[in-house]
Amino acid sequence: MDNERITLAHGAGGQQTAALIERLFARHFKNPDLTADDAAILSLDGTRIAMTTDGFIVSPWQFPGGNIGKLSICGTVNDLACMGARPRYLTCAFQIEEGFSLHDLDVIAASMAETAKAAGVTIVAGDTKVAGRGQVDGLFITTTGVGELLPGVRTGGALARPGDDIIVTGDVGRHGSAILLARGSYGIDAAITSDCAPLWPMVAALFAALPQKDVIHTIRDATRGGVGTVLYEIARESGVSIDLTETAIPCAPAVRGLTGLLGLNPLYLACEGRLVLFCTPEATASVLDALHQTADGASAARIGRVAAAPAGRVSLTTELGTTVLLPPPSGELLPRIC
Amino acid sequence: MDNERITLAHGAGGQQTAALIERLFARHFKNPDLTADDAAILSLDGTRIAMTTDGFIVSPWQFPGGNIGKLSICGTVNDLACMGARPRYLTCAFQIEEGFSLHDLDVIAASMAETAKAAGVTIVAGDTKVAGRGQVDGLFITTTGVGELLPGVRTGGALARPGDDIIVTGDVGRHGSAILLARGSYGIDAAITSDCAPLWPMVAALFAALPQKDVIHTIRDATRGGVGTVLYEIARESGVSIDLTETAIPCAPAVRGLTGLLGLNPLYLACEGRLVLFCTPEATASVLDALHQTADGASAARIGRVAAAPAGRVSLTTELGTTVLLPPPSGELLPRIC
Repeated sequence: MDNERITLAHGAGGQQTAALIERLFARHFKNPDLTADDAAILSLDGTRIAMTTDGFIVSPWQFPGGNIGKLSICGTVNDLACMGARPRYLTCAFQIEEGFSLHDLDVIAASMAETAKAAGVTIVAGDTKVAGRGQVDGLFITTTGVGELLPGVRTGGALARPGDDIIVTGDVGRHGSAILLARGSYGIDAAITSDCAPLWPMVAALFAALPQKDVIHTIRDATRGGVGTVLYEIARESGVSIDLTETAIPCAPAVRGLTGLLGLNPLYLACEGRLVLFCTPEATASVLDALHQTADGASAARIGRVAAAPAGRVSLTTELGTTVLLPPPSGELLPRIC
Repeated sequence: MDNERITLAHGAGGQQTAALIERLFARHFKNPDLTADDAAILSLDGTRIAMTTDGFIVSPWQFPGGNIGKLSICGTVNDLACMGARPRYLTCAFQIEEGFSLHDLDVIAASMAETAKAAGVTIVAGDTKVAGRGQVDGLFITTTGVGELLPGVRTGGALARPGDDIIVTGDVGRHGSAILLARGSYGIDAAITSDCAPLWPMVAALFAALPQKDVIHTIRDATRGGVGTVLYEIARESGVSIDLTETAIPCAPAVRGLTGLLGLNPLYLACEGRLVLFCTPEATASVLDALHQTADGASAARIGRVAAAPAGRVSLTTELGTTVLLPPPSGELLPRIC
């Protein structure tokens, strides 16, 4: 490690990020509460809580469908929601570049407040640091959230089982596409808005509709690295194989058109308002029914199934009926969205 | 606000930081749980907890007495300790510049793990983002902590009362001086180590020694902005006047020498291991006695007293017996340490 340097790939959420966490952070911080899940499940004076943190950088700071403020609330709220935790309290730390516009900061803070309200979470503490010009790219926001666990819910990336159905709660690749277009570097114009949304209301409605909460084994939000990266993570953590049905994966025509033009895979474009869920096949109909009645889950679809072996593999059955390997995530994100 | 821009002073922890928080963040985020204290006091499923967040930037990343990793744990642990909360769980978010040395990152993570252990806190979640070269100055770390409140303890910046004694738990200005020297820009050499330390063990020992916990009204750690800034904050929040006895303020000869040479006021240099405490005068002897028996409180001293009026004023009785106004904090920190 002595002469090695951090590369952009270490922050892209793929294999190199996993390797950095494993080799460096996990080695020093190792403890039973630190897992690969979206949030830690903890005990405080006998009360079970969930806790998670996430840092947000995005350029440009606003995009169709949101801005870095909304994103910073959604990211943390959604990580708690994935563990079946009702988001209660949030902290936010700002690192702002000297010269950043106060008007823009005001727009961002207003958006954070509005999104927190929609998610039912209270912002309880903050921190503001200013870095000199050129020492930070505009604005970084780090949010941390704690939440109360719903009784009877136990989800985790290592809990997917052979036979489980895989559901995605909406069309894929919107956020990555919206950011890419907002940068304007390709001279392409398309009406794509980010899916960025706080998903706790959807998760709460889902669990409220299910008499047996334990039919849901895994929930993860497909952010950095997209649905493809999340599926590879779960296949590895649960030691299972995943088979996707390509034609079942919802994807907006504009996103398909853009990714086709640029040679990108929509399964590897970030979402900020989409969950991947694993449930028992007997529960699939009720889960889809509950999701379809929510604003953010209207186009939820079953996109695949879990098999026992080979562990860690993600395959895709194409329109032609051919089964191919989904290329594993690695290296730098295209586009870099965080 | 339309044409205003963020300046370094907005992040210096003085009047301009307070104005930014008041005018912008507090306006949008306003709620009863968001206070000016070091940590928020919250209720989760009926359990009372404390929660706080802090972002850390320091150049150079290591200095005599610590590094950014140790600092990032101490800062958050100490904010919880100030509220009488036993630190339990911590999250850390890294924003790393492309090209940062993995070896250095390993040293930093090892230091975080060691400090967390000393403070009795568990690191339960993390996040890693990488920014391109020049988009972040080396490494930013944001930590967030939650803790369990000690029964019977209630401290806060608005709870200081006329008649209270003011205690500082050790000599002032070490951290700011150590950073200033570590930069090497003045060509001055002096043996000054930072006071950077996790203070929960000291606070726990203090409360354990006090039969009546409510004799302590206010505890705050004198970080960014130093003891002077903290005293002005408390004078304003509690609506009281503060009178300091200059000769009683502990300050190492090397720090005195350095600050004298550079024309800096040690009361405005950052500490990272010093608390300012307000207690009833009847309890002062027991508080000092308990502090003197701890490693980090060995040189604790009574440095002043609270009066009713004029509210918001901090004055200093000098060696000559003259009473002068302590210059209020404002503008950029010298040196900038975060």
